[in-house]
Order: sequence, then structure tokens, then C-alpha cells
Amino acid sequence: MTTLELLQRAKKAKSAMALADTKAKNTALLAMADALEAQREAILAANRLDLEAARGTVSDVMLDRLALSPERIAGMAQGVREVAALPDPVGTVLDRVQRPNGLLVEKTATPMGVIAIIYESRPNVTSDAAALALKAGSACVLRGGKEAHRSAAAIVEALRAGLSAAALPQDALGLVEDTTRGSARELMCANGLVDLLIPRGGAGLIRSCVENATVPIIETGTGICHIYVDRDADLDMALNIVENAKCSRPSVCNAAEVCLVHEKIAGEFLPRLARRLKQVELRLDPRAAAVISGVPAGERDFDTEFLDYILAVKVVSGVEEAMEHIAAHSTHHSEAIVTQSPETARTFLRGVDSAAVYHNASTRFTDGGEFGLGCEMGISTQKLHARGPMGLMELCTFRYLVRGQGQIR
Amino acid sequence: MTTLELLQRAKKAKSAMALADTKAKNTALLAMADALEAQREAILAANRLDLEAARGTVSDVMLDRLALSPERIAGMAQGVREVAALPDPVGTVLDRVQRPNGLLVEKTATPMGVIAIIYESRPNVTSDAAALALKAGSACVLRGGKEAHRSAAAIVEALRAGLSAAALPQDALGLVEDTTRGSARELMCANGLVDLLIPRGGAGLIRSCVENATVPIIETGTGICHIYVDRDADLDMALNIVENAKCSRPSVCNAAEVCLVHEKIAGEFLPRLARRLKQVELRLDPRAAAVISGVPAGERDFDTEFLDYILAVKVVSGVEEAMEHIAAHSTHHSEAIVTQSPETARTFLRGVDSAAVYHNASTRFTDGGEFGLGCEMGISTQKLHARGPMGLMELCTFRYLVRGQGQIR
Repeated sequence: MTTLELLQRAKKAKSAMALADTKAKNTALLAMADALEAQREAILAANRLDLEAARGTVSDVMLDRLALSPERIAGMAQGVREVAALPDPVGTVLDRVQRPNGLLVEKTATPMGVIAIIYESRPNVTSDAAALALKAGSACVLRGGKEAHRSAAAIVEALRAGLSAAALPQDALGLVEDTTRGSARELMCANGLVDLLIPRGGAGLIRSCVENATVPIIETGTGICHIYVDRDADLDMALNIVENAKCSRPSVCNAAEVCLVHEKIAGEFLPRLARRLKQVELRLDPRAAAVISGVPAGERDFDTEFLDYILAVKVVSGVEEAMEHIAAHSTHHSEAIVTQSPETARTFLRGVDSAAVYHNASTRFTDGGEFGLGCEMGISTQKLHARGPMGLMELCTFRYLVRGQGQIR
Repeated sequence: MTTLELLQRAKKAKSAMALADTKAKNTALLAMADALEAQREAILAANRLDLEAARGTVSDVMLDRLALSPERIAGMAQGVREVAALPDPVGTVLDRVQRPNGLLVEKTATPMGVIAIIYESRPNVTSDAAALALKAGSACVLRGGKEAHRSAAAIVEALRAGLSAAALPQDALGLVEDTTRGSARELMCANGLVDLLIPRGGAGLIRSCVENATVPIIETGTGICHIYVDRDADLDMALNIVENAKCSRPSVCNAAEVCLVHEKIAGEFLPRLARRLKQVELRLDPRAAAVISGVPAGERDFDTEFLDYILAVKVVSGVEEAMEHIAAHSTHHSEAIVTQSPETARTFLRGVDSAAVYHNASTRFTDGGEFGLGCEMGISTQKLHARGPMGLMELCTFRYLVRGQGQIR
């Protein structure tokens, strides 16, 4: 099937999805989870073909991302079941006002319509993204990476079987067959067919979507996150937070990449930081390098998402310089201040314009589950519509439903 | 000044605007309104030059839009004072949750940063748009039409004087000097400088922005609005509503362009409609033409925003066909059903995916003031971020402010 046909079918299926009640959608999701487990052998066989084709051409990290196992498939099914258990956002009344003329105006959460997702090589994104989009009442068109195409096709086959089992149209979920760049471009410019495009992947993919898309998109993910350790910080707390933000999972977007340290405490804090983060390569600005030993920071080190055991470190004169540095170098994902001064914390929280701004906590909490959204489609780093973790509500739009008794203006 | 310099200055000024408290912003707005009146003669003189240059090259309607008078300037000043009186959206806590680990997560309304507005020839948009953007805590860059440039420059000079009077940076409001297409393109692609672009104007301008912009934009305004008169309608109410939606102000986007009539009542309703809308040209589909006389509808008549005393009329078999017709032909702005049947109304309100969906009321109510937002920057016809009237809150984004006591994950 061509990408255009797939999109047209999704568009036709979107009103059935929008009108499906919570029970129908949950029945479908549970059937989708069961089908993933029932078709486990077929999915694993397809994945083996993907792995064989990829071996030697991609890195070991990439191969690991691509690989499925019975446990990983069970995890995918469990993820879909968890989405079924979440509250249904569709129909939620977000605001209600009765006007003096008697009109009742209700701002009501409504499905987007067709959500397209362009992603890379993790097969589990296939089921995660599909489950979230469908629960939010939208049809879903997926375009995964070439390396994982056989796996994704097997997964989508199982998921579509689940839709049928709940009498929802299979066309509400589609996988783009063409894995060339042309199909990504087609999705980016499918105005009138795609209501929302979400790219999930590396910086190159995101940039390409931002530059080329004419359909509405949500930019996700790159995180150059900062932690500013203030003069008035509890240094034990600061060490815990920096260590957690850097080391608990360095490959994710909410991991810290930069530590800014107040000059008044640099002499005490930096040696302790160096001892604590033994496995981390510290890249030091000249003032930090005067205190501890480490690699001198290069030109790009304060503008790089390392996603690794590397931390750029800079000494600053105070919260104002920290905020200026963040404004100039951040990707506006997550930043934290560690301080016992309520006033300095207030200045930082008011003045830092990022999706999540923390006082005395690790940046690693920027996550749909941790914020109480129950799940997430990704972390938006744009300002329009969704910012930070995108839960089910952020996958919805809204309509104003207005009830009258013949009012005219 | 080049457009790039203007944007860089706005970017520098945006944090002062974001941090300005309500009092400072309101003081500035009131001073801006006073300055408009104090500089009335200079503004009128600039407007006369614009009018002289435009005479003979543009239509009379356009000349009327372009023309200022002492009354119109007083109206502009009044508009700015009304924005000062509105509640400040910045800092509003939209959602607050305390997590089991003790983290307090507050979703907080936050200024966009730099809002750029591309508009056409109405000089009053200059002060309206600037007042709304500044009140929402953003810096504002305006790019008006060539015909109105001298008027806009005089208005902006007055408004900037008002900013100074409240000790806010004049650079928070700028007017693009270059009125060629090149400057519009520059704004559309100023990633990193423009946080939100809002085009206000005709369909051509909007389409150009949607197709070419790489910065986040909000599509505003074309409205092909439908009224469906159901079998169970109160026909007197239906006549009132159709007349109001068509005739009270035909040139605006929330005016009705299409009337769909249930076949069971067409024989009674259509002759009454023709008598009631004497000044309106009815363009009839074959089934309507079998009942009353009028112009046969042409191929494009059900896909045209007439903005005039013209109404396309079609007979349908029921609410399902009405909804299908709307899905295929609407711009998803505003649609109404007139019916006494709660069940049919429910079907229509659930199934029609437009920004505003009415039961027994005129589409003319789709307006920021009428919905209780107090004002509007325009009517969004897109689904992302803002849908329907855009008030001050829709000109904001949000941040998650997270307060902890050393939490790590």
C-alpha cells in the first residue's frame, strides 16, 4: 500500500476512533496486548531477520536497541495494558462557563484525528506509540526505521488484530511500508491528512522534521540539562543530585550534561564532586580547572548532549551568570538549582525558561510517570501545545461545545 | 534597522517582559493608550500619506480599512486600556500535584518569549496585537502591510513611548521596516528568535505561512461555517439563527456560508428562508432548487468563504449526511445544529470536529469576548495549542516548576 493510501484509510478510520467509547478502546488495547503475546514467535522471527540484516552495518548499541526477546515482548504487552488502565482524556470538560446571555460554553478535550509518528530503531516504540495515540482517540500512522521494519510489521499485525477483536477499524493503525526518506517527507507535508506529527529519535530526525514539515508537529527530546550548585547549597544534597542526574541513566534526555558551580563554594565542592563521580569524565572551564584536574572543556562541550559519562563543569559568579549561561546554551528541557536560599531559588524558578525547572531535585524526574501523567509519548522541548512530558491529554486537542436556546448576536 | 537586528533586540528584551509584574505591564499599557491619543495628529498625518499613496491602486473597501480618524484612534486607545484591565495570565498555576516522593509539581503559565505577527492593512491591528502580546509577557515583532506602513510606524512610535514611560524596554515592541516579501520569509524561518508566529489576514497570507514557516505558527481564521436545520428544528428559531449568522456581519470569519436543510422540512422551511433573507443571494443545490428559486450552486459554492450576502443551500437526508458534508467541506471553524431533539443534537455535537460546535445558537458567537476570554488575537482553525478564539492564556506557554528537598530518582 502507498503511504498516501495508508493516510487516506487512517483519515477514514479517525471518526470511528473519535466516537469509540472508553470501554471499546480499552477492550481493543487489552486484545492488542494479548495478540502481542500470542504472536510472540512470529514477532521474534521477524526480529531475527532484522538483526541478521543489521549485523555488521550498525553499532552494538544499535543492535541491542533493535533486539527483541520474550521478556521484551512481555514488557511491550504490559505497557499496552498500562495504557488501557489510564483514564480516558476524550470528553473531559476542561473549562465551562455560562454566559450572561444563557449560552453554556464547554471547552472539551477531543481527539487530534490522525497522529503520525516517525521513529527510529526501537521496536517497542511501535506498540507504545500506537497504544497512546489510539487511547487518545486518534488513528495512528507509524513510520519506523529501516533496520526494524520487519519487526515493526509483525508487531503492527498483532496490534491490528487486537483492534478488530474490539470491532474497531484496523485502518486506525497503519505502518508505512516505504522506509526511504521519501515517505518521511510525505508524512511531513500531508496537510489535510495528518493532524499531528511527532518525531521520536535523534537530533537529526527532529531537525529534519522542524525544517521540512508543513503539518503541525511537536518537537521532542534533546536535553542539554544544567544543574546549578549555588553558594547556599547543601553540598551533600548537591552531590547526590548531580550524581543521580548524571549517572543513573546517562543515555536519556533528562540526564544532566552541565554542572555550574558558584565561585564561593567551588574550592570545597569541586574536589568532592571529582571524588564522587570517579567514572565520569569532567570537562572543565578554566576556573574549574584551576581547582581540580580534568579534561579542559573544548569549544562545543557546553553545547553538547553527551548522553554518556561526561559532564561539563563551569564556575560562575552567581545565579545571574548561571541563568545567562543556561539561556544561551540550554535546549530548554530541564534545569535545576541546588540552594537553601528561598530567594535565590525564586529567582532561578522565575527566570529560567525551560520545560521543567527544579529546586533541590534531580532533572531525571522530567518524565510522564514521575509527573503523575501515567505515561508519555515523549518530552516536548517546544513551547506550543505541549511542553515537557506529553501524556494522553497532550495528544488531544479540544473543541468548544456551545448549547443555547436560540441565541443570536 | 534590519529585521534580524530587530529580532535580536526583541529576544534580548523578552526576559525583562517575562519578569515584569502585572502592575508594570498595566502601567505601560495605560501609557501606551495615552501616547496614542497624545500623538494623534502625527498618526493621522502618517495615515494621510498612506491613503494618498494607496488611492487608485486599491479598492474602496481596502481604503476604508486603511483610513484612520480621531474616533478610530480613540477606539484603538480604548482597546489597549481594555487589555490593561484583563487579568494577567502569567504565573497562573494551571495544575498542581504533590507526588508520593514529596515533589511539588506546578504547571505554570509562562510567556512565549517573542511573538511575531504578520498582518495586512488595518492599522488598528498594530495596537491590538501589540497590547495582547505585551500583556501576555512577550516581546512583540510586527510586520504589517506595505500600504499601511507609515501609519503603523507612527502607531508603534507612540506605543514604544508608552513602554519607556513604565521603564520597560522599548525593544520589546518592534515594527519590521522592510515590507517586501523577504521580511515575511525571514520571520517565518527565524528559528531561535521567534517563539510563535501568528498570521492575521486573508487566506493567501495564512497559506504562505503554513507552507513556509519553520517557526511554530498558529493558523487563524478562514471560516466556512455551516448551519444544519434539522427535521425537529423550531423553524422560527432556525430562521432567526440563519439570518443572524449570515447577515449580522457577513465579512467576518464566524458568519455562516452554508445552510443544510433536512429533506422532511425543506418544503416548509426553504420558502420562509427565501422570504426572510431577501437581500441574500441563495445558491441552491438541485434538491433545494426544486423547492425555491435561486441561483444554481456552482462547483465551488460549497467550498467558498463568501464573506458577502451569499448563502449556499443544500437539502440533506438527515444529521448523518449533514455531518459528512461538514467533514468534507468545512474549514473546522464553527458549525451549528438547530433542533429540538436532544438526541440529534448530541450526535451532532459529538461528531462534528470543528473549533466551536453549536446547538440552537448562531455561529457568530465564536469570539473571544463572547466566550468570556475578554479579548482575542484571532480565531485559530488549527488543532495544536489553540483552537477557536485565542485569548491571553493562548498567547502563553507553560513550564513545570518542581520543588523538592533533595529528591533523586
